[in-house]
Amino acid sequence: MHFNVIARVLGILLMLFSLTTLPPLLVSMWYADGATQAFASALLLTFGIGFISWLPVRHVRHELRTRDGFIITVLFWLVLAFSGTFPFMLAENPGLSFTDAFFESLSGWTTTGATVMTGLDHLPQSILWYRQQLQWLGGMGIIVLAVAVLPMLGIGGMQLFRAEIPGPMKDSKLTPRITETAKALWYIYLMLTIACAVGYWLAGMSVFDAIGHSFSTVAIGGFSTHDASLGYFDSAAIEMIAVFFMLVSSLNFGLHFYAWRNRSLAHFIRDSELKFFFMVIGGGILLTIPALYLTNTYSWQESVRYGIFELVTVATTTGFSTADFSLWPVFLPVLLFMMAFIGGCAGSTGGGMKVIRIMLIYKQGIREIHRLIHPNAIIPVKVGKRPVSERVLEAVWGFFAVYVLTYMVMMLALLATGLDHVTAFSAVGACLNNLGPGLGEVASHYGNISDTAKWILSLTMLLGRLEIFTLLVLVSPAFWRS
Amino acid sequence: MHFNVIARVLGILLMLFSLTTLPPLLVSMWYADGATQAFASALLLTFGIGFISWLPVRHVRHELRTRDGFIITVLFWLVLAFSGTFPFMLAENPGLSFTDAFFESLSGWTTTGATVMTGLDHLPQSILWYRQQLQWLGGMGIIVLAVAVLPMLGIGGMQLFRAEIPGPMKDSKLTPRITETAKALWYIYLMLTIACAVGYWLAGMSVFDAIGHSFSTVAIGGFSTHDASLGYFDSAAIEMIAVFFMLVSSLNFGLHFYAWRNRSLAHFIRDSELKFFFMVIGGGILLTIPALYLTNTYSWQESVRYGIFELVTVATTTGFSTADFSLWPVFLPVLLFMMAFIGGCAGSTGGGMKVIRIMLIYKQGIREIHRLIHPNAIIPVKVGKRPVSERVLEAVWGFFAVYVLTYMVMMLALLATGLDHVTAFSAVGACLNNLGPGLGEVASHYGNISDTAKWILSLTMLLGRLEIFTLLVLVSPAFWRS
Ligand SMILES: [K+]
Ligand SMILES: [K+]
Repeated sequence: MHFNVIARVLGILLMLFSLTTLPPLLVSMWYADGATQAFASALLLTFGIGFISWLPVRHVRHELRTRDGFIITVLFWLVLAFSGTFPFMLAENPGLSFTDAFFESLSGWTTTGATVMTGLDHLPQSILWYRQQLQWLGGMGIIVLAVAVLPMLGIGGMQLFRAEIPGPMKDSKLTPRITETAKALWYIYLMLTIACAVGYWLAGMSVFDAIGHSFSTVAIGGFSTHDASLGYFDSAAIEMIAVFFMLVSSLNFGLHFYAWRNRSLAHFIRDSELKFFFMVIGGGILLTIPALYLTNTYSWQESVRYGIFELVTVATTTGFSTADFSLWPVFLPVLLFMMAFIGGCAGSTGGGMKVIRIMLIYKQGIREIHRLIHPNAIIPVKVGKRPVSERVLEAVWGFFAVYVLTYMVMMLALLATGLDHVTAFSAVGACLNNLGPGLGEVASHYGNISDTAKWILSLTMLLGRLEIFTLLVLVSPAFWRS
Repeated sequence: MHFNVIARVLGILLMLFSLTTLPPLLVSMWYADGATQAFASALLLTFGIGFISWLPVRHVRHELRTRDGFIITVLFWLVLAFSGTFPFMLAENPGLSFTDAFFESLSGWTTTGATVMTGLDHLPQSILWYRQQLQWLGGMGIIVLAVAVLPMLGIGGMQLFRAEIPGPMKDSKLTPRITETAKALWYIYLMLTIACAVGYWLAGMSVFDAIGHSFSTVAIGGFSTHDASLGYFDSAAIEMIAVFFMLVSSLNFGLHFYAWRNRSLAHFIRDSELKFFFMVIGGGILLTIPALYLTNTYSWQESVRYGIFELVTVATTTGFSTADFSLWPVFLPVLLFMMAFIGGCAGSTGGGMKVIRIMLIYKQGIREIHRLIHPNAIIPVKVGKRPVSERVLEAVWGFFAVYVLTYMVMMLALLATGLDHVTAFSAVGACLNNLGPGLGEVASHYGNISDTAKWILSLTMLLGRLEIFTLLVLVSPAFWRS
């Protein structure tokens, strides 16, 4: 381990991140909303901490190795979540406690979108902007993480993309190519954000709301500037724009990269993960709409409108809302909630287990049945037309098992804090899948649960975003031994 | 497929099974409890149906193949569960509906132990005997299924035992050796039952209760002749005897077979599944007892007594009770319930996913972490000192994935019937793991849920007992095509 280099990297990161408090600072001055000084202090604090961590080791140079990659990746999120707490604590409104501020900040960075805040409509504009911007920046980090870093670290079968998917990264060393790739990906991400914001604005949102919601839409984040979330606008046009950009942002950004570089949509059509994703979403919609109508929950038109929106926002793990799906009848709350376990495609800003993994697990289930019928046949599992290596399949299974185990451990921990069964079950799901809203007590916000529960769920969000193994490796004795 | 042979086998089976109504018939005459005629009619009906199915095809001979094995295995349980309904429907008390009788009968045969009945203490003795006996016979069937049939069919990685465990069956054809093996296994099973019954009797049970409870103990069944289950006796001695025999019956009967043939306990000590099993049980006990005491639920002595008993009865998937664990504080109900997912060892009468599978999944999880640290190392997964083949590991993963999927589908189906979240979640778990009691509305019995829910849960019990794939293969188009 090269702790000097790690300190240098994180120091630079913090100094850079301190600059991101400038936009909310300007918003605060513009609206004169009383939070200007909080943002100025946050800027100085963050820059100062970064500077102190960078100064003594600024000349150290070492080639970073995979092992350092794990540590930097985990610290990246922790350090940014920590420094992200300053404005929430320093501003008089909301003036959060450290626990609440950390939860909110990490929830933003990981694009989970679980919130401890209520009364959003009465917060300073700058704080609202800042929350939305946290998710947007987090989304950027996630794309680089998902497209470049995790595949390189070999987490949970994601090395699949290095060899088998036309992604931008086929290299296994932490080289300057990350910077190059990152630039291209961020450019795409920025374009999507602008397109989404313009769409919202044309559909009737204010400029402030349009930008804010475009941030949390392309980041699959789900934060909103209103307590009623997107339901505040009560506009079918805005909802359809949101549905479109949520779906686009749930696709592998490697595909967007390819399309942008080759000026061609051909790869979208050939991608089997994408096909599976749309089949799952389509299937979910076809179950939801009739169930809403037949239980007399809504009229036909409303069933279509609310059904599509809620299914897409939950299944993509965005977590906006126009209706409280946790109150929908019979199996619908649980069905929608289960869809979030599938989540977005690999290499997207979405959460969950990722479509490609579910697809591989499904294909192996089918293969097992065929093997029972033809015990001696050799049946490869394929993505598109290429067989997937056993190594990748094992990594996917390992991921699946650890996901289930993490779920159970976290749920038991929450139950130990005194939460009820439904709340504990859904809070873990909402955080591990980086979805945001749960069922029961955490259907609309996380303000009423204990501090202990908030810390457990903070850990859960981080585990979900880092695909568990990145964090798990760090606590394994073998990692520190060798 | 050789439907003639299948009809002949099932016909013989029914004629044989009809004889098992003789003991309850005698019990009924002895106690003059009014159910004599019901059992006589059941005997004739069952024998008659068997005879009619056997007569036209009695001379047909064909070598049975693996494919026929799937069909016979599934029909075996369905046909026996069906014919097991007669006494429940024909006897004036309880005089169950067909749905209830089928649920109760299947619950007996699969040794699930979920019951729709209340007021057990007021039922005819013969009906009580009959229920206990159903579980005992079911347990016999399960041992043959688990030790001989499923490994041969290659279900869920259980072929492991053919090659790698010193089991009695290493052959892959449906030969007369099954009969031989079955005889030895049943002999062991009978000895265990007798030992258990004598133990109960010495500890103070009546002869009737001792035999009845020994039936459901060694079968890991959990039916009782009293509404209060084993709690009726309020005897620490009886509970410790039950704990001992539940643990013994949760071990691989292949090990018992080996010990009996070689007059040696050496294999018990070397078996790594057994070690893992006791570690899991021990760990569960070490969590349960302090949690009971520290939450002021019981005194120290009671915490130890109820903690050990309830943990063992739930973790082995027996489902007796001396205390209502579903009312225990914080995480305990869910913790105990989760233990049932692990269940007994492969080749036992226990339910759940089986210890060996969980052990293999755990070992692979550890391997994944090591692989992330040493990407190029070759790390085999071992049981004892032998590496496990990738083929077996894949089958185990396939099983795990299908288990989770089945769970979700069945839970959604139950929610659609209007059950609440906790009841649906736990009812599926209790039936899929062949445990019996659940949480919420089904904590003590299943009498209050709808008929539709009972049928869904009947299917779930059968799926659990047949390790899902046996049934899943039958509904796959590929099975019928080739
Ligand atoms: K989200
Ligand atoms: K049971």
